[in-house]
Amino acid sequence: MQHIDTLIHAAWVIPVEPEGVVLPQHSLVINDSKIIALLPTADAVGQFSARVTHRLPTHLLIPGFINAHSHAAMNLLRGYADDLSLMTWLHERIWPAEKKWVSPQFVMDGTRLAIAEMLLSGTTCFNDMYYFPDVVGKVAEETGIRAMLGMIVLDFPSAWAQDAQDYLGKVDGIYNKYHHHPLIHIALAPHAPYSVSDKPLAQVAAMADKYDIPIHMHVHETQEEIQQAMQKDPYRPIERLELLGLLSPRLLAVHMTQVNEFEINRLAEKGVHIVHCPHSNLKLASGFAPVHDYLQAGINVALGTDSAASNNNLDMLAEMRTAALLAKGVSQNAAAVSAAQALSMATLNGAKALGLAKITGSLSVGKFADVTALDLGGVINQPIYSPLAHLVYSCTREQISDVWVAGRHLLKDRTLTTLHVRELKAKIFAWRHKILNPR
Amino acid sequence: MQHIDTLIHAAWVIPVEPEGVVLPQHSLVINDSKIIALLPTADAVGQFSARVTHRLPTHLLIPGFINAHSHAAMNLLRGYADDLSLMTWLHERIWPAEKKWVSPQFVMDGTRLAIAEMLLSGTTCFNDMYYFPDVVGKVAEETGIRAMLGMIVLDFPSAWAQDAQDYLGKVDGIYNKYHHHPLIHIALAPHAPYSVSDKPLAQVAAMADKYDIPIHMHVHETQEEIQQAMQKDPYRPIERLELLGLLSPRLLAVHMTQVNEFEINRLAEKGVHIVHCPHSNLKLASGFAPVHDYLQAGINVALGTDSAASNNNLDMLAEMRTAALLAKGVSQNAAAVSAAQALSMATLNGAKALGLAKITGSLSVGKFADVTALDLGGVINQPIYSPLAHLVYSCTREQISDVWVAGRHLLKDRTLTTLHVRELKAKIFAWRHKILNPR
Repeated sequence: MQHIDTLIHAAWVIPVEPEGVVLPQHSLVINDSKIIALLPTADAVGQFSARVTHRLPTHLLIPGFINAHSHAAMNLLRGYADDLSLMTWLHERIWPAEKKWVSPQFVMDGTRLAIAEMLLSGTTCFNDMYYFPDVVGKVAEETGIRAMLGMIVLDFPSAWAQDAQDYLGKVDGIYNKYHHHPLIHIALAPHAPYSVSDKPLAQVAAMADKYDIPIHMHVHETQEEIQQAMQKDPYRPIERLELLGLLSPRLLAVHMTQVNEFEINRLAEKGVHIVHCPHSNLKLASGFAPVHDYLQAGINVALGTDSAASNNNLDMLAEMRTAALLAKGVSQNAAAVSAAQALSMATLNGAKALGLAKITGSLSVGKFADVTALDLGGVINQPIYSPLAHLVYSCTREQISDVWVAGRHLLKDRTLTTLHVRELKAKIFAWRHKILNPR
Repeated sequence: MQHIDTLIHAAWVIPVEPEGVVLPQHSLVINDSKIIALLPTADAVGQFSARVTHRLPTHLLIPGFINAHSHAAMNLLRGYADDLSLMTWLHERIWPAEKKWVSPQFVMDGTRLAIAEMLLSGTTCFNDMYYFPDVVGKVAEETGIRAMLGMIVLDFPSAWAQDAQDYLGKVDGIYNKYHHHPLIHIALAPHAPYSVSDKPLAQVAAMADKYDIPIHMHVHETQEEIQQAMQKDPYRPIERLELLGLLSPRLLAVHMTQVNEFEINRLAEKGVHIVHCPHSNLKLASGFAPVHDYLQAGINVALGTDSAASNNNLDMLAEMRTAALLAKGVSQNAAAVSAAQALSMATLNGAKALGLAKITGSLSVGKFADVTALDLGGVINQPIYSPLAHLVYSCTREQISDVWVAGRHLLKDRTLTTLHVRELKAKIFAWRHKILNPR
C-alpha cells in the first residue's frame, strides 16, 4: 500500500486528455499537490492508503475551468450598466466609474468577490487584466486559486500608472516576486490595439521574449474598432500587431469577432491563441467569432468570461454551453464544437494559451491537482446517457460541489474554505452603497 | 384587518405589468388562489391578516415562467443524441427511439420528470405538444402545475393514433373533460407544415374557431424544411398556412428562424404569435430567429425550451438569458431585447400567446397567483444595482426557492410538495436501463 495525501472516488472522471473519454467508477490519486494516478476505483482501494478520502458516488470529476480572460475586480460593477453597445458602455458608464472608484482597496475587494464566485463555479485558474495586478496577486495567494496576473499597459493614465512607460516599469518588480511561484503566473497585458501605441507595443513584444511570458490583449473585438484604426493606418489592427512582432504563440488574442480568411490562416501559421468570450460578445453586440473556422484551421481556442460588468457573471459552465451552442448556429453546422471540444476549450486549451499545459488543464499524471467535482445525482439531471453532454448542455453551476487547486480543497461541499463570506458580503454592501451614493 | 390566505413579503417584486418596474420591499397578497393586492410591505402588515406568511428578505418575486413550447415526456431522452442536425437527429435517433418506447407509461413518467424540473426552475405553466395528451393532463392535475395540452395531429401513425382523422377524433373528449378546468387548458397541435397535409390543417383551423382555442405548431424551423416544401408547392409553408386559414391570433408559430420582410409584416397584420426557442435553434443549427425585428414589427414573441432531448433542459431562466443575448448579437444592437423585454417574453407574452393573459403571466390583481421567488442573497449575486439585470443576465435556476401555482405552494424552499422525488428517480433509472439495454 502506497501512502498518499488524497483519494477521490467518483462516479465518472473526464480527464480531457485524451479528448472525449469518460471513465466510469474511477479514482484520482493526489500526493504533494500533484496527480499521481487515475485508475479504476476497484484498483485504487487496494493500492493506495490516503490521509483523506472523498467518496463522490453521484459526481463527475473534471479539470478545473481555466478562465482565459477576466477583469476580476470589475465584479464590483456587476449589473451597473446593461443593454448598451461596447463604446457607449465603456466611455459613458464603465470608464467614468473606474476613474472615480478604482484603488488598491477596490481591486482587493472586487477580486476577492470574483475569486469567491469563480471557485463556486468550478474555476481553478484565471487570466486577469486589470489595474493593481500586485493586489490581484496578493488576493490570489491568500485564497489559493491559480492566477495569471496581466501587467496592464495603456497609453493613458489610471490610478495604477501615469503613461505607457510607467505601466511597463512595473513589470520587473512583480515578475521577480512571482516567477518561481507554483500558483501565480505573469503575463503582459497591453489593453488593445486602439489604446496602446506602437512604441510600447514593440517593447511589450521584446519584454515577453525576455521573460518568456504570454501577451494578453483585446484584439478585433468590434467592427468599429477596425474602421477607426483604418482611418489612421493603411492596414487592419491585426496586421499592425504583426508588423510590431506580436503575432506569435505568446499572444492570446481576446475576442477576435472580426476576421477574414487571410487573417485566419495567418493566425494559424503564427500559432496565436484565441480567447473566445461568447456572452460578452453577444451582450455588447460585438459580433460572432467564427469559432468552428478557427478550430478547423488548427488554432487553439480558449474560453473567457470577460468581466462581470459585461457578462454578468464569471460562470464558465454557462460560457462553455453558449460557446458550444453558438458555434453551431454561426457555422450552420450542428456537429460544430461538440461537447468534448467545448470542454477542452474551457480547460486544456486555456492552459495551452497561458503556457501552462505542462502543469494544469487536464487530469493527467504529473500535473497539479486542479480539479472540479459536479454532483449529477439530482432529479433535475436524470436520466444520464452521457455525463459529457450533461456537463456541457444541461448542468448549472450550483451542481459544482468541490474544487481543489494544487491538491488544496478550496471548495468543500459548496463551502469556501479560504474566504470569509460574511465579511466579504459586508465589504461588498459597503461598496455598493458608496457607488450608488457618490459624494 | 382583512383575513386572507397568504402573504409574501419580498425584498423586490417585478410584476411585469407594467414592463420594467421593480418594487422594493413589497408584498403580494393572495386569497382563494388569486392575487388580491400588491403593495408596500409597510402597508400590507397593517391591512392583512394571513393564514400563512412568507418572509423572503433577500428574494425577488416574479410571475412564474410560461414555457410556451415543450414536449415534456421527452425528458426521458435528455442527452440521448447530441451534436446532430435537426433532420439527422429526428430521423436517425429521436423518431426510432420514440417508435420503440412511447406509451402511456413513458408519457406519464417522462412528463412527471419534466414537471419536477420545471417547478425546480420556476416554470408555472407549460404549453405541451406530445402523444397521449390525456396522460399529460392527468400528471399536470396531480402535480398542480398549469398546463396547456396540445392535441397533436400528424399524417402518420404513432402509439397514440393511426392517422390524421384519428388524432383529430380525440380532441372532443379531452376538450369536454377540461374546458372548465382552472389549470388545464387545451390547444390544437398540428406538428408542422411538412408532417400534416392540407385537409387536416383546414380541419384544425375550423376546430380552433369552434372551440376558441389556440393552434400550436412548428413553423419555418429550418431552411431545409422550406426548400423541401417548395419542391412540391409554388409557395413557402407560411403562405400555405395562410391559404388554409391558419394565420390568426390563434396561431403560435414555433421557431420561425426563416422569414423575409414580407412575411414579418404579414405575421404582424394577422396577429400571429411567435414562440422563440433559442437553445434548440442553436443546438440543431436551425438558424437565427430575428427576434428584435419581430418585436419592432409589433409581433408578440414568447419563449419555449423545446424538449430536453434538444436543449438539454427545461430551464427558462437560461433560455431567457440566451434570448436577450442572442437578439443583441443577431440584430447587431446591444440595446435589442432589454432585460425587461426578455422577462416579458418569458412570462406575460407566453400568457398572451396561449390566450391566458387574463388569468396569468403577471403579478396583477385579479390574476391567479402563479408566482416564482428567487433568492439573491448569496455572495455570488453581489453587488445588486439592478435585480432585473441580475435575473436575466446572471441568476441560475438553483436560486429559485419557491413556486406557487394558483396560490398553491408547489416548491417550498426547493422541496417539491406534490412529487415524490425518490420514487420518481427510481422510475427514471428503470427507463434509462431499459432504453440502454433494449431486448
